[in-house]
Amino acid sequence: MKTSTHFLAPVIAVAAVALGADSALAQDASKAVPADSAFVFNTVLFLMGGFLVMFMAAGFAMLEAGMVRSKNVSMQCVKNIGLYSIAGIMYWVIGYNLMYTGVDGGFLGAFGPYGIPEPDKEAADASYSVASDWFFQMVFCAATASIVSGTIAERIKLWPFLVFTAILTGVLYPITGAWKWGLGWLSPDADVGWLFTTFGAKFQDFAGSTVVHSVGGWAALTGAIIIGARAGKYDKSGAVHPIPGSSMPLATLGTFILWLGWFGFNGGSQLAMGSITDASAVSRIFMNTNLAAAGGVVAALILTQLIYKKVDVTMALNGALAGLVSITAEPLTPGPFAAIIIGAIGGLIVVFAVPLLDKFQIDDVVGAIPVHLLAGIWGTLAVPLTNSDANFVVQLIAIIAIGVFTTVTSAVVWLILKAAFGGLRPSEEDELVGLDKAEIGVEAYPEFGQGSQTV
Amino acid sequence: MKTSTHFLAPVIAVAAVALGADSALAQDASKAVPADSAFVFNTVLFLMGGFLVMFMAAGFAMLEAGMVRSKNVSMQCVKNIGLYSIAGIMYWVIGYNLMYTGVDGGFLGAFGPYGIPEPDKEAADASYSVASDWFFQMVFCAATASIVSGTIAERIKLWPFLVFTAILTGVLYPITGAWKWGLGWLSPDADVGWLFTTFGAKFQDFAGSTVVHSVGGWAALTGAIIIGARAGKYDKSGAVHPIPGSSMPLATLGTFILWLGWFGFNGGSQLAMGSITDASAVSRIFMNTNLAAAGGVVAALILTQLIYKKVDVTMALNGALAGLVSITAEPLTPGPFAAIIIGAIGGLIVVFAVPLLDKFQIDDVVGAIPVHLLAGIWGTLAVPLTNSDANFVVQLIAIIAIGVFTTVTSAVVWLILKAAFGGLRPSEEDELVGLDKAEIGVEAYPEFGQGSQTV
Amino acid sequence: MKTSTHFLAPVIAVAAVALGADSALAQDASKAVPADSAFVFNTVLFLMGGFLVMFMAAGFAMLEAGMVRSKNVSMQCVKNIGLYSIAGIMYWVIGYNLMYTGVDGGFLGAFGPYGIPEPDKEAADASYSVASDWFFQMVFCAATASIVSGTIAERIKLWPFLVFTAILTGVLYPITGAWKWGLGWLSPDADVGWLFTTFGAKFQDFAGSTVVHSVGGWAALTGAIIIGARAGKYDKSGAVHPIPGSSMPLATLGTFILWLGWFGFNGGSQLAMGSITDASAVSRIFMNTNLAAAGGVVAALILTQLIYKKVDVTMALNGALAGLVSITAEPLTPGPFAAIIIGAIGGLIVVFAVPLLDKFQIDDVVGAIPVHLLAGIWGTLAVPLTNSDANFVVQLIAIIAIGVFTTVTSAVVWLILKAAFGGLRPSEEDELVGLDKAEIGVEAYPEFGQGSQTV
Repeated sequence: MKTSTHFLAPVIAVAAVALGADSALAQDASKAVPADSAFVFNTVLFLMGGFLVMFMAAGFAMLEAGMVRSKNVSMQCVKNIGLYSIAGIMYWVIGYNLMYTGVDGGFLGAFGPYGIPEPDKEAADASYSVASDWFFQMVFCAATASIVSGTIAERIKLWPFLVFTAILTGVLYPITGAWKWGLGWLSPDADVGWLFTTFGAKFQDFAGSTVVHSVGGWAALTGAIIIGARAGKYDKSGAVHPIPGSSMPLATLGTFILWLGWFGFNGGSQLAMGSITDASAVSRIFMNTNLAAAGGVVAALILTQLIYKKVDVTMALNGALAGLVSITAEPLTPGPFAAIIIGAIGGLIVVFAVPLLDKFQIDDVVGAIPVHLLAGIWGTLAVPLTNSDANFVVQLIAIIAIGVFTTVTSAVVWLILKAAFGGLRPSEEDELVGLDKAEIGVEAYPEFGQGSQTV
Repeated sequence: MKTSTHFLAPVIAVAAVALGADSALAQDASKAVPADSAFVFNTVLFLMGGFLVMFMAAGFAMLEAGMVRSKNVSMQCVKNIGLYSIAGIMYWVIGYNLMYTGVDGGFLGAFGPYGIPEPDKEAADASYSVASDWFFQMVFCAATASIVSGTIAERIKLWPFLVFTAILTGVLYPITGAWKWGLGWLSPDADVGWLFTTFGAKFQDFAGSTVVHSVGGWAALTGAIIIGARAGKYDKSGAVHPIPGSSMPLATLGTFILWLGWFGFNGGSQLAMGSITDASAVSRIFMNTNLAAAGGVVAALILTQLIYKKVDVTMALNGALAGLVSITAEPLTPGPFAAIIIGAIGGLIVVFAVPLLDKFQIDDVVGAIPVHLLAGIWGTLAVPLTNSDANFVVQLIAIIAIGVFTTVTSAVVWLILKAAFGGLRPSEEDELVGLDKAEIGVEAYPEFGQGSQTV
Repeated sequence: MKTSTHFLAPVIAVAAVALGADSALAQDASKAVPADSAFVFNTVLFLMGGFLVMFMAAGFAMLEAGMVRSKNVSMQCVKNIGLYSIAGIMYWVIGYNLMYTGVDGGFLGAFGPYGIPEPDKEAADASYSVASDWFFQMVFCAATASIVSGTIAERIKLWPFLVFTAILTGVLYPITGAWKWGLGWLSPDADVGWLFTTFGAKFQDFAGSTVVHSVGGWAALTGAIIIGARAGKYDKSGAVHPIPGSSMPLATLGTFILWLGWFGFNGGSQLAMGSITDASAVSRIFMNTNLAAAGGVVAALILTQLIYKKVDVTMALNGALAGLVSITAEPLTPGPFAAIIIGAIGGLIVVFAVPLLDKFQIDDVVGAIPVHLLAGIWGTLAVPLTNSDANFVVQLIAIIAIGVFTTVTSAVVWLILKAAFGGLRPSEEDELVGLDKAEIGVEAYPEFGQGSQTV
């Protein structure tokens, strides 16, 4: 929002004509976007950005369906459509108000369902439709839950996972979200979260490298530690047994869908498109977002070739995603070259971090912790390199604050669910035959998957 | 269209400035969307909504490719790209004019291809581009044919199916479409279909729970009865032998694509976006559409867990689709909570109706009859709950009228095609080896599908 | 761009109001799109068109993943995400300036990376955001490289392919692109490429049947000849052994994604949407694009049924793509019937050309040469049939000039790479076991693909 013009600019400009301003000014004014047009443009940005990010739910589903074994694919499909649905409902029931209403320098907003006005009763000075904003913010919330789903795949029961999703999307994500974004950002008399009011410099996280991606990453990491690794991934000697995913083309498709969705994720986070400056900013964000992802891919391709003498398709895919997460904290201020480098470093982080996690026997099925948590931290810390409003220490404080809160609260939730459901993991036998047979009752590939016989 | 402002409003408003209206009015007017901008906004809605709905063709293709056995997947791919193509041509050759031109209180419009003006010769008072409207209406027509394709998969020959598609999209769908939508809806001196002129209250079906989805559903039901069940689905004792689909991730992908497309389907049906009220309405429709689908998923998940002690991935997917169909008749007037409930009831209907159809030995491969016909009826009957302009009896009359017409005419067409093609079904042997080998000559998965050996 | 109004039209029109023009004019002016709104509309067209074309990268990836054998699917996924990334970087590093800056009647533009202005420093008379244009042009460039990828799949090593991609997207495509499009098209004092300045009539190629598709096709053809056919495709007696692709549903999905993307490809090439005329033109392009694809499908279905007594799913898919390529040279001037016929002839070309290529033992895995090169030539030659500005001889000269340049230069590059990498092909053994095992180290379907055992 940094470069957005005041939302009343068009009104002021055109009013100048009506009120007989001098002719030079009048000519500029005559070019300006009228206020109602700006309202529609801003709303279109939310709707278009929103449906692109919504489609990321399909991207996560395909990425995960491709990265798990065929015996767990139906389960992963159910989890993904389930979590997206639950996130939508919870974010209406409680999440949105908790994140945005009455935060006022504090730690959280109001409780209760979010009311939207009738279409002909938007506020007189509104610069976008309230419902379009809800839709846009909701799909961000759902993305956070999708991140968790991938890491802890193949060894968590369905219902504890879904209940965790409900709490993450309804309560945990909105609370840390309020710390940064609970600022009624388009309103002059905005509520503001404490991360914005406490320090001299404001915490900068444009589209949520920390607020979205690292929150999902911390919750995933906590879950992975509490639940433990998949049977057979690590043996007692500490050796790592790679478990290949069942379908690389589906994983690739998922990555491309996520890349597509990221134009909505980052571009839409400009939050306005009703002026030359805003439309230009959205365009620059598209360019930088694409270049950062490209940088991540190329870096991962070259590095895996150098280290392993072969290129790894999953590393290339995660390189793209790491590049995208890295640029998410600041997709506007970097120039193209900086965007490529920021993304490339994200790609390098993934290539180094995946084996590192295995060293700690943290079993991350899709690599979501390197991609969303580590590249998210990198992207957040890189903001001061191109944005002079950002302060390295404040960025670090925010990363730590949000990380500690998310880790502690999600650990508590995981442990309560463990007690409530008599364990988070399916039985050893169920894990061996696969969750599709055990919990879903519909195999993903009944005609050619060998399910329990393999791996 | 209920809340849309008059399409001349921006002109009137801005003209007020030019003509020196008093300053208070002038200030409001100065905010207004100029007429040409409104034209562009409305056209963008049609184009954006249109390409989203167009992509639903891919969604249906993937859903069906995932729900049939591997020996019939290539056939299903051919049918889907074929029907979308035929629908597009037929809707230009005859369908559009039959549905929209000169209906005038009657049962159908004009015959003949649809002419579009040169880009610089749109009507002086046009509020959207004629071609963008054609594109938007065409993809709706194609969706109707896609519904039929799924139900009667795996046991109908290619060419009779494609000819049926041509008649459905060129003639049958446009006729019942004219009854509701043949009203030149954006023009003050509109042609109107008889369902609009005959009763005191007007038939309300915002984006087509009845006009699109139930029409597809009735045609599918008629086809399923006339063609009969797949070999091996029901034995003589009445026992049902479930035939699992070949790929749950493709079915899941298809469902997510359909969900994405539905934002265009319902949001675009506001038919205008060139004012605050219209843009706000589109936004509210996005929100309600998403919440209804989410309600359908959650209801199906919970109900299948309660009844079967396992969750069924196909029920979760069809729960989403049933939620979407349910809200399609009225996505604007409900509040968020009502939208969730309307969708959830759609999800419950699917879970109960799928086994019920099996009881009658009606073999519906993808569950399109519960999803599109039954949830479509439910959604249409639910309109009066939130929209005071709707009347329960009129809704019921419309459902019955359209149902009777579609059932009778499509039965006639199916029977004529049966005679003309020497039967609608492939030979028993062809059905056993699979339609890919028999009619397409390209297997879908030549390296790992076992085709005829399984099931 | 033919029918686009002057980009200053809204300014002129609204300025007329401010300057007190007569009332009749003033009323028209009051409807006009203000200049800043037009800027936003034009930018939205580039962004929306751009993300649709970007998604075509996923379409090509799925089409190719479905058309190769399972032992080469991971490789094809890596190539596709790699080429899209490299194209993006190269087009920033050198391509864009080479194609658009300072061409001035000549053969190429300037060297060096492309600088974009800060969002609040767009040129005073800019009618769109510079970065949005870069994004839109970049995805076209990437599409060119995708075409090559499919033809020469299954028998080229990864790194020579990626280096070729870098040169194609950074140098070769931009040079011939400059000949046609290096005209600073929106600026009154435009640079123009020699194909525009040399002849009386200007070379007409609206969205690039020749400039994009045939360039990819020529590079692919050259590569296919230099690299040779896949082992086992042709035996010494000249017999052809068809090698079926591994997944028809993925190929179908890819085709539908490409079809979706083509609305951005052709519609976005109107390059403006900030007036009634432009929005109307974009709409007409959507309609024609869809009808041409539909014509291609129906023609391919009927012709394969007549010739082979069976329908071939890959022919139906390629029929759609050939229809799309055919209409790309001129999607605006044809009426709907002409669009169907132009596309249908494209579909016929594919059905005849695929066996013809096999006669010459040119092994084109996905059929990209018939689709992109031959249908591209057809579409370019068909322009004069509906567009009176086009001249058949000039069209032919442009086709030949661009074809000769691309063939010669890409042959040189392929041969240099052959020397530099010690051959373009993997070893016979690597080709037999599959490139996934040999170069990628991650099999695409480890649980059910049989890789080297089949075919």
